[in-house]
Amino acid sequence: MITKSDCITLDQEDSIAHLRDRFHLPDAVIYLDGNSLGAQPKAAMTRAQQVIQQEWGKELIGSWNSAGWFDLPSRLGDLLAPLIGAKPAEVVVTDTTSINLFKALAAALQIQSKNNPQKKIIVSERNNFPTDLYMVQGLTAWLDRGYELRLVDNVEQLNTAIDQDVAVVLLTQVNYRSGEMLDMHSLTAHAHAHDALTIWDLCHSAGAVPVELNACHADFAVGCTYKYLNGGPGAPAFIWVAERHIANFSHPLSGWWGHATPFAMQPEFTPTASIRRALCGTQPIISLALVEIGLEIFKQTEMTAVRKKSLALTDLFMQLITERCAAHGLQLITPTNHAQRGSQVSYMHPHAYPLIQALIKRGIIGDYREPSVMRFGFTPLYTSFVDVWNAADALRDILDNNAYEINAPRHAVT
Amino acid sequence: MITKSDCITLDQEDSIAHLRDRFHLPDAVIYLDGNSLGAQPKAAMTRAQQVIQQEWGKELIGSWNSAGWFDLPSRLGDLLAPLIGAKPAEVVVTDTTSINLFKALAAALQIQSKNNPQKKIIVSERNNFPTDLYMVQGLTAWLDRGYELRLVDNVEQLNTAIDQDVAVVLLTQVNYRSGEMLDMHSLTAHAHAHDALTIWDLCHSAGAVPVELNACHADFAVGCTYKYLNGGPGAPAFIWVAERHIANFSHPLSGWWGHATPFAMQPEFTPTASIRRALCGTQPIISLALVEIGLEIFKQTEMTAVRKKSLALTDLFMQLITERCAAHGLQLITPTNHAQRGSQVSYMHPHAYPLIQALIKRGIIGDYREPSVMRFGFTPLYTSFVDVWNAADALRDILDNNAYEINAPRHAVT
Repeated sequence: MITKSDCITLDQEDSIAHLRDRFHLPDAVIYLDGNSLGAQPKAAMTRAQQVIQQEWGKELIGSWNSAGWFDLPSRLGDLLAPLIGAKPAEVVVTDTTSINLFKALAAALQIQSKNNPQKKIIVSERNNFPTDLYMVQGLTAWLDRGYELRLVDNVEQLNTAIDQDVAVVLLTQVNYRSGEMLDMHSLTAHAHAHDALTIWDLCHSAGAVPVELNACHADFAVGCTYKYLNGGPGAPAFIWVAERHIANFSHPLSGWWGHATPFAMQPEFTPTASIRRALCGTQPIISLALVEIGLEIFKQTEMTAVRKKSLALTDLFMQLITERCAAHGLQLITPTNHAQRGSQVSYMHPHAYPLIQALIKRGIIGDYREPSVMRFGFTPLYTSFVDVWNAADALRDILDNNAYEINAPRHAVT
Repeated sequence: MITKSDCITLDQEDSIAHLRDRFHLPDAVIYLDGNSLGAQPKAAMTRAQQVIQQEWGKELIGSWNSAGWFDLPSRLGDLLAPLIGAKPAEVVVTDTTSINLFKALAAALQIQSKNNPQKKIIVSERNNFPTDLYMVQGLTAWLDRGYELRLVDNVEQLNTAIDQDVAVVLLTQVNYRSGEMLDMHSLTAHAHAHDALTIWDLCHSAGAVPVELNACHADFAVGCTYKYLNGGPGAPAFIWVAERHIANFSHPLSGWWGHATPFAMQPEFTPTASIRRALCGTQPIISLALVEIGLEIFKQTEMTAVRKKSLALTDLFMQLITERCAAHGLQLITPTNHAQRGSQVSYMHPHAYPLIQALIKRGIIGDYREPSVMRFGFTPLYTSFVDVWNAADALRDILDNNAYEINAPRHAVT
């Protein structure tokens, strides 16, 4: 049986424990929802002040040049690149994950329509984050060229679903609900063996696990910066295009920021040669600038160290729940195998929603997802092993004492 | 001849002069570029602190409910509505102008494809802000259904260009380069007489002139919040849909924020019934929240007062240039007729770029646009009549003394 004292020892031996000091975390809160919204880096406020008071307030319009606002999407992309196994100049931070997915899918279908015009199938998972599927539905319905979305019900069906008819495979590396991680390397190889292109959604993996886009020979990727990358609420997303595809990367959201000469004010669109062709319109600079603060914290460590702690945290949580909550019918839906796990642990329970609400009342912030899923995200940069102990202990106490309101009222945003 | 003393009197009589105190404006700067990036409201920093330290830092994920983050696009839309002659629940603040234009154009073409499928022409101006044209090119090329962009070279050609083949008329109310304002009422009526739908780009009119979308019976509109609305650099844009079109408003950027039940996590997209169907992905909350600060300032006045001062400022500037710079070959490209003028004045000059740079060195911030255009924007909320005097006087001095560097080096962002 693991003891709290064991957890204290684990914290003492934690080589990245000091990074917790980089974050503002409220007293008496154990925050296990960094997989939904990352915590606030302390430096964010200073940077916001600089952007608002100095760059906007004093230098005004001149900041497009002097503060490098116009270059920000590519500068942030270069900072992000090492965390996802990308090269500089392959990724930009811009727009939203949904919009970026639209661009990547459009570009992938365009490439396939030239190379393999008979391929009409887009493969994804029914359990993928819904907006990914919605964007496929939106684009393919409008293109009206016979594209079909083929959804698999579970990961095991992926290999057979990816056949010679498949144009694009769209997968999220770590599932938002279960925390299951897919094998990017083998699935990309399998897709390529069938001349399909891959789009990887990294929302729940960037900053949580070492992503190896180029080592996996992936084609396109998108993801958000406001979860494990701690860029701030709704901070702009990223889009990555493998260097070999950039020259052919073409999408319908052809706005002026993607133009070869945006300030020449030409009436005809000519895409720039670089990854900036994935840009569209003017970006929300204040939100965008704060992404840099989140990314800079990763310079103090390596993704291997982050991953090692992540697995230790999630292993610990699962073991504590097994040891201490066994009688209460929690059904683990996160794989115990390290290679198949991101940085979250999820349980199903008939009273998942009221249980999460009861935990939140005690300052332990996890979240709920339909249907009946309790999610606990473990951000290695600021979560301690004692946090894990305390969270598991609180859940045990709530379950042992039925200390939750079965008909807890639902919030609009769960 | 107007004197500086006349300008001092005008400031003393200015009923909205006190609103200048709401803005941070650097000492020794006369800011005539609010048509590109509005100045910083003093309250912006306090609001940013609240969002970053309180909402993000302390309440964390709970702020999606408790701070109303999820509702922000529609709440800001309701605040904006009276400034553009819209009803509440017809407009949301979200994404970028380019992306919103894409949605509006897609929706308009979809409506026309049902009602008037033979109509294949989209009319716009060659001198429209380029990204508007690029977005048309992007969408129509991808749809591949025979749509054509018909560009007119000048406003006089619009009436004949809008004929029975036209599906959509896409116009910017106030031209970004010349400051010319189109007659929204008559052009919309003309378009409707030919069963064409209208999309109005309000980037250079929202907050500058009283816009009357519903009174003009317009169909769709988009615009930015970072110019005359002072929402902050690159702040999210808006999209307006006339109430009668909302039920038929359908576009391919069908992300989860536009879903009828976004947190039910359904794999099929079902648009919500409200204007929120114009939303797509998760929004950049910090930039978005600051839009409210800019909008709140307008509650202290009426658009008629803003417009009255705007015309007085631009009249004054033109008259001063006529009186004091006549010999120097400045060519006015802004209409002198009030009904045809926004809130900026533009001159062409062979040395426009170095002249603007010389003015900027003296703290008078206008800007340059290709080809050979000097732009001066007059934001009534914070520009004084003495500012106008001083700006015109500095330009006179620079011209009289050839006090500019003819080969001034170009910045990346002009």
